[in-house]
Amino acid sequence: MAENGMERKPWRFDFNPKLRDAASRNIRSTVDLLRSNIDRSDARPVIPLGHGDPSSFPSFRTTAVAEAAVVSAVRSGDYNCYGGSRNLVPSRRAVAEYLSRDLPYQLTPDDVFLTMGCLHAIETVISVLARPGANILLPRPYYPFYEVRAQFSGVEVRYFDLLPDRGWEIDLDAVEALADDRTAGMVIINPGNPTGSVLSYGHLEKVAETARKLGIMIIADEVYGHLVFGNNPFVPMGVFGSVVPVLTIGSISKRWAVPGWRLGWIAACDPDGILKDAQIVKYINEYLSITSEPVTFIQGAIPEIIKNTTQDFFDKMISLLRQMGSMCYDRVQEMGCFHCRHKAEGSMFMLVELDLSRLQDITDDVDFCCKLAKEESLIILPGSTVGLPNWLRITFAVEPSSLEDGLLRLKAFCRRHAKGGK
Amino acid sequence: MAENGMERKPWRFDFNPKLRDAASRNIRSTVDLLRSNIDRSDARPVIPLGHGDPSSFPSFRTTAVAEAAVVSAVRSGDYNCYGGSRNLVPSRRAVAEYLSRDLPYQLTPDDVFLTMGCLHAIETVISVLARPGANILLPRPYYPFYEVRAQFSGVEVRYFDLLPDRGWEIDLDAVEALADDRTAGMVIINPGNPTGSVLSYGHLEKVAETARKLGIMIIADEVYGHLVFGNNPFVPMGVFGSVVPVLTIGSISKRWAVPGWRLGWIAACDPDGILKDAQIVKYINEYLSITSEPVTFIQGAIPEIIKNTTQDFFDKMISLLRQMGSMCYDRVQEMGCFHCRHKAEGSMFMLVELDLSRLQDITDDVDFCCKLAKEESLIILPGSTVGLPNWLRITFAVEPSSLEDGLLRLKAFCRRHAKGGK
Repeated sequence: MAENGMERKPWRFDFNPKLRDAASRNIRSTVDLLRSNIDRSDARPVIPLGHGDPSSFPSFRTTAVAEAAVVSAVRSGDYNCYGGSRNLVPSRRAVAEYLSRDLPYQLTPDDVFLTMGCLHAIETVISVLARPGANILLPRPYYPFYEVRAQFSGVEVRYFDLLPDRGWEIDLDAVEALADDRTAGMVIINPGNPTGSVLSYGHLEKVAETARKLGIMIIADEVYGHLVFGNNPFVPMGVFGSVVPVLTIGSISKRWAVPGWRLGWIAACDPDGILKDAQIVKYINEYLSITSEPVTFIQGAIPEIIKNTTQDFFDKMISLLRQMGSMCYDRVQEMGCFHCRHKAEGSMFMLVELDLSRLQDITDDVDFCCKLAKEESLIILPGSTVGLPNWLRITFAVEPSSLEDGLLRLKAFCRRHAKGGK
Repeated sequence: MAENGMERKPWRFDFNPKLRDAASRNIRSTVDLLRSNIDRSDARPVIPLGHGDPSSFPSFRTTAVAEAAVVSAVRSGDYNCYGGSRNLVPSRRAVAEYLSRDLPYQLTPDDVFLTMGCLHAIETVISVLARPGANILLPRPYYPFYEVRAQFSGVEVRYFDLLPDRGWEIDLDAVEALADDRTAGMVIINPGNPTGSVLSYGHLEKVAETARKLGIMIIADEVYGHLVFGNNPFVPMGVFGSVVPVLTIGSISKRWAVPGWRLGWIAACDPDGILKDAQIVKYINEYLSITSEPVTFIQGAIPEIIKNTTQDFFDKMISLLRQMGSMCYDRVQEMGCFHCRHKAEGSMFMLVELDLSRLQDITDDVDFCCKLAKEESLIILPGSTVGLPNWLRITFAVEPSSLEDGLLRLKAFCRRHAKGGK
């Protein structure tokens, strides 16, 4: 081929096929798709009940203490440098002490790995466990990022169900039936996303015993840790670390309402050193050495953030979430086209089942949510994105006035589309 | 197996074998190893001439303008939220305009992808290009992270040499001999790490024509962009974007001396839209949607950082690097156990060849550097870490007084180990 006086072979660019459709399976992509349905001539503000990030609402603004800690770390000039693949020791120590408050043993800085938020923590754990032929057990309804990363790493995904009739407890018989010699671990997400449930001490103990019997580790996603407002207290899975080794995933994103700060962690809750002996801890370090690291000055700010945040800030957020969750449950229940089985007890979400028999001209949950975006400038996540077709995941963690407005729009939409309605 | 009254299968934890020794091949690990050799009874401070991060030295402290931009973004409360996989548009626009100043065409925000520093940019590009059977052409002496990521992604690495007798220009005959139908692209690092060279316009043009002839893209690592202080000006590879599609990798880490802020980019320098047509741009987006993202408030600060930084700040850093590079060259040349072929003209590094015939009791570069760390508390990178056994990579970007001190220690070490010396 000759062109512009220069001979050349045809360009032969190709891409990694494992990335095909990777983005489209994310919650973010679904939300983007719904937003593209919004009628731009609608003067009303868009109400985002589709994803769990209330941080830009005034009522959910993070504590001034956290902002001050970051500002002070920036201004010091001490944290412009690389943090190093093993991160700053005082920062790891601060997280170890923070997590140990709720454990029957003490974590050390060596048990803690700082990550760029929970996504990076999930990416790391799955990449480390991705030996050839491995499979991983995931809960369904699910948080889709686990499956996306597992597929990218060549890890087979096997789903066990969470049981709506038992408060979204884990179907442990299914777990036993799914596990085999290639099972790298099982994931639990507690407080639950998308379920809004909080698992009891008794149930978590059974989960630990099941995993122990099967010889598999537990990956405990506790990104919504402490965000509970129902009957069950938050029990970290690490409490059962001497029954079964646990890799706990967490971050400051949700409890401090700063997901944009990208500071999360993996904690090896493993008082008997089983993960260390199996070199899992070493390989987490290996993986983190070939990826980027959390911003150094945010690492530097972590000890102050943890030390200086007052209980008052946490209490206020819990009170707000409880109030919003109740309002959401009460109002949605009255609308006549949903089955609401559970009031949310934790996280920022409620799952409700669509009663399609009560609706005309709505074919499924995706259709419902697309029309809702178009007609009401209201974003709600279709359940099929999280493995529950014809359910909806409603985020109630927004400014109270926005939630009120959003629920009014949802009610109007339901009335307009109800059979025999208008 | 029964234990604590609970039956269990043996734990069967295993890890991803692709991560084996991943960390040990990094520059950081070599530096950590050298540091472990330091004699703790030596009261002198450790002098770090092993890696390119001068940000914690007073003379290299970033501009107050950049710190103020970040502080203001934090204080605004507007950037606590997720930034989204496509990043903030004004931030991408600011980077597009910044890069376009040196190009014969305008980049748009859609051509720019913000990453968590250059490591994340490299990870992204290699992961996207990792189709089955792909190979990638890398320069030697090398920056080892490319090989580490390529191996993790299953991409075959093929090295072409940089020629020390031609100012570290690329051996283009070797490039032609190495490329085949599975070649995903070739990497150039300019200004050079570890070479300290700056490639001329004429040579870069030949590189572009060679790549075009072969039908392969260029991945242009310009993390040290604009840090030049010799005869050749910095010419971004994107200048030749209409000859050959270029993916440019850059960041604020080096020019602004803030590697801990983790803000880098990939820019598709592709005025004819070839990478877009081949879906490479789409797949960069897909990959970025399954990894973490740069901290939102740092994204938010980028337009101000770029707009408000004065030429004065850049000039001062260049002047300092020029002065330090010259001092390093002059002093090392006089020590009698090195061949110094080139004064550094860019980046923060100088490569020098060890003359082992002039040294007693030193077996190779690693032995030299281990003993140097132990006896003089001075860290210098052994060339074998970057593919050049029996060379050294000396970082001269440190506080001037530290460099002076370090060179005195190096001289004393050489004298002590010279044949017939002491």
